[in-house]
Amino acid sequence: MQRWRRSLLYVKAIMMEAKQAKSIEWVGDLGGHVALIEQTLLPEKLEILRVTDVETMWKAIRRLAVRGAPAIGIAAAMGVVLAVRSGDVAGTRELLEQVHKAAEYLRTARPTAVNLFWAVDRMLRCAEAHSGSGVDEIRQALLLEAVAIRDEDAAMCRRIGECGAPLIGEGCGILTHCNAGALATAELGTALAPMYVAHEAGRAFRVYADETRPLLQGARLTAWELQQAGIDVTLICDSMAAVVMRERRIDLVITGADRIAANGDAANKIGTYGVAVLAEAHGIPFYVAAPSSTFDLELDAGGAIPIEERDPDEIRCGAGRRTAISSVPCYNPAFDVTPARLIRGIITDRGIIEPVTREAVLATLASRGS
Amino acid sequence: MQRWRRSLLYVKAIMMEAKQAKSIEWVGDLGGHVALIEQTLLPEKLEILRVTDVETMWKAIRRLAVRGAPAIGIAAAMGVVLAVRSGDVAGTRELLEQVHKAAEYLRTARPTAVNLFWAVDRMLRCAEAHSGSGVDEIRQALLLEAVAIRDEDAAMCRRIGECGAPLIGEGCGILTHCNAGALATAELGTALAPMYVAHEAGRAFRVYADETRPLLQGARLTAWELQQAGIDVTLICDSMAAVVMRERRIDLVITGADRIAANGDAANKIGTYGVAVLAEAHGIPFYVAAPSSTFDLELDAGGAIPIEERDPDEIRCGAGRRTAISSVPCYNPAFDVTPARLIRGIITDRGIIEPVTREAVLATLASRGS
Repeated sequence: MQRWRRSLLYVKAIMMEAKQAKSIEWVGDLGGHVALIEQTLLPEKLEILRVTDVETMWKAIRRLAVRGAPAIGIAAAMGVVLAVRSGDVAGTRELLEQVHKAAEYLRTARPTAVNLFWAVDRMLRCAEAHSGSGVDEIRQALLLEAVAIRDEDAAMCRRIGECGAPLIGEGCGILTHCNAGALATAELGTALAPMYVAHEAGRAFRVYADETRPLLQGARLTAWELQQAGIDVTLICDSMAAVVMRERRIDLVITGADRIAANGDAANKIGTYGVAVLAEAHGIPFYVAAPSSTFDLELDAGGAIPIEERDPDEIRCGAGRRTAISSVPCYNPAFDVTPARLIRGIITDRGIIEPVTREAVLATLASRGS
Repeated sequence: MQRWRRSLLYVKAIMMEAKQAKSIEWVGDLGGHVALIEQTLLPEKLEILRVTDVETMWKAIRRLAVRGAPAIGIAAAMGVVLAVRSGDVAGTRELLEQVHKAAEYLRTARPTAVNLFWAVDRMLRCAEAHSGSGVDEIRQALLLEAVAIRDEDAAMCRRIGECGAPLIGEGCGILTHCNAGALATAELGTALAPMYVAHEAGRAFRVYADETRPLLQGARLTAWELQQAGIDVTLICDSMAAVVMRERRIDLVITGADRIAANGDAANKIGTYGVAVLAEAHGIPFYVAAPSSTFDLELDAGGAIPIEERDPDEIRCGAGRRTAISSVPCYNPAFDVTPARLIRGIITDRGIIEPVTREAVLATLASRGS
């Protein structure tokens, strides 16, 4: 068979499977399991990872099998359920201790995305709220809470999409960095949600996806999921973002966020800050899209957001092959912080915060979601 | 043996070999060959490619076995010699026709680096100047000219190093992009030459090397050659340049150039323009280093520089492994143009052009090298 034909069939097969696969979901009742797309294997292989214990979930978060701030939150919530759903316990008190222990453990998986802490806290509050009930009731309540976190995330993504879609005009060129799409959330994504909604509405536009070194989430995940949705996507290296802006191919930048401080400073995948500086220099509006669960109002400004530094071999071993000798030191921060002054607006499930000021952030988050 | 130990020994072995290896040189007399470092295999393997015919040289340039504007010029000059050094010819006129044919052929290898055209033109002029001589004398003169181009390049690099070294203060942090080092030239390099000279003078400083996607010349070549020289180098992804600037790790940026227009606009490896914009936004001086052979005074401004667009699979296949499905469109310009207004100064073999104006460019190029 010709190579391009084999390639096409391969893409089609993956697309058909992918339509059924959710990035992360709970399957069955308390005795069930978590099914999540093993994202480290994409786009070469679509494999569903079946997670039945909290240690495997911790590792899945740590090694980026599941990634993206909202998806990490869902994974952590389901991880709490996996940790406490069965086994003999003396009573409610011991169960609550188990919940606390699982929460502490899951908090150590990754430091930057606040959704993880937010989701774990919500699971803790749920357990406390049911402390008057029996063990079985609490376990059941925790499962319902984790599933609710997932379903609410899907709904928030849809609202982000509806809020942001009007920004995307016919013929628009959009740049995005990393993957803040369906794979990073329960459904639709954050940065990509406005694109999905605009596409549903029949608007034609082109997306430029930064490949996003070192782990290539743009190449492996964003290009893949946009193409599968039928959206016109062009892949570029991160170093080409400046040139596509200068060539007037870009009218709008939208990225996701892993944690947003009260003043609107936003941590996101390494490289985002540079894209924001370039956008400003070229007069292109730069938007961040994130659900309310990504805001951390306890932090006054972005400087306080902890930034994960990862293994130097993510840089030295390129995409598998060694590209630098092992004795070369590397600096590998996984995230950077974009100051609010570079962000034109933050597209949330409760409307667009624009301009980005502390007052506007607080006012929007205080409002009830529509 | 422990892994780190094996790794160290491996580095040491490569370093010892590398001390003897030149990026490109002619070995022997007219019956000899060109020896060049096969740069596509670095840093995993140091292999010397032995080139004996012009077709192999054309391919070596095209597939980046030899790369870097000055080295490409040397390769093209030696390619002309390979094309005409032997075989029966009816007389001087037929030989000159062969030289012209070889020149035209070599011009098609790559479009952006002007040194290639400059070197080929110089070989043509050399042949014409000797048109009164016999076939053997012309062949001999061409070999001498090609070797002179190589030796002069080495001397120009040394002068660039001496001109630029005073910019590098003790404890300085320097960012560079791509590889404009010894591997890109006859010796010492252009952007890296000031670093080698400052290092020889005993100054301590740290270099941050952008890995330089898609072909990773920063990771594969710059990190490798700086480490081998004992210079403190840290490898980063291109997307991290903005953050190391913001963290005040960078006092100075120096890159090479592939072609510089009369007004000082400079084409260089894709990503350079973005680095220049980021440097300006962070108040960091951005310098370009290049020999006089890299200037193209026939071009009024950078917009006229032809930009090579390369195979999308350079992006889609990452560093060997497939990172995006083959049906995803890519945009893969190999170079970009940095406007003169973003360049603090151009470090040449004839002094530093600063500020970068058309008048200063013309005045410096009109002066004789020191």
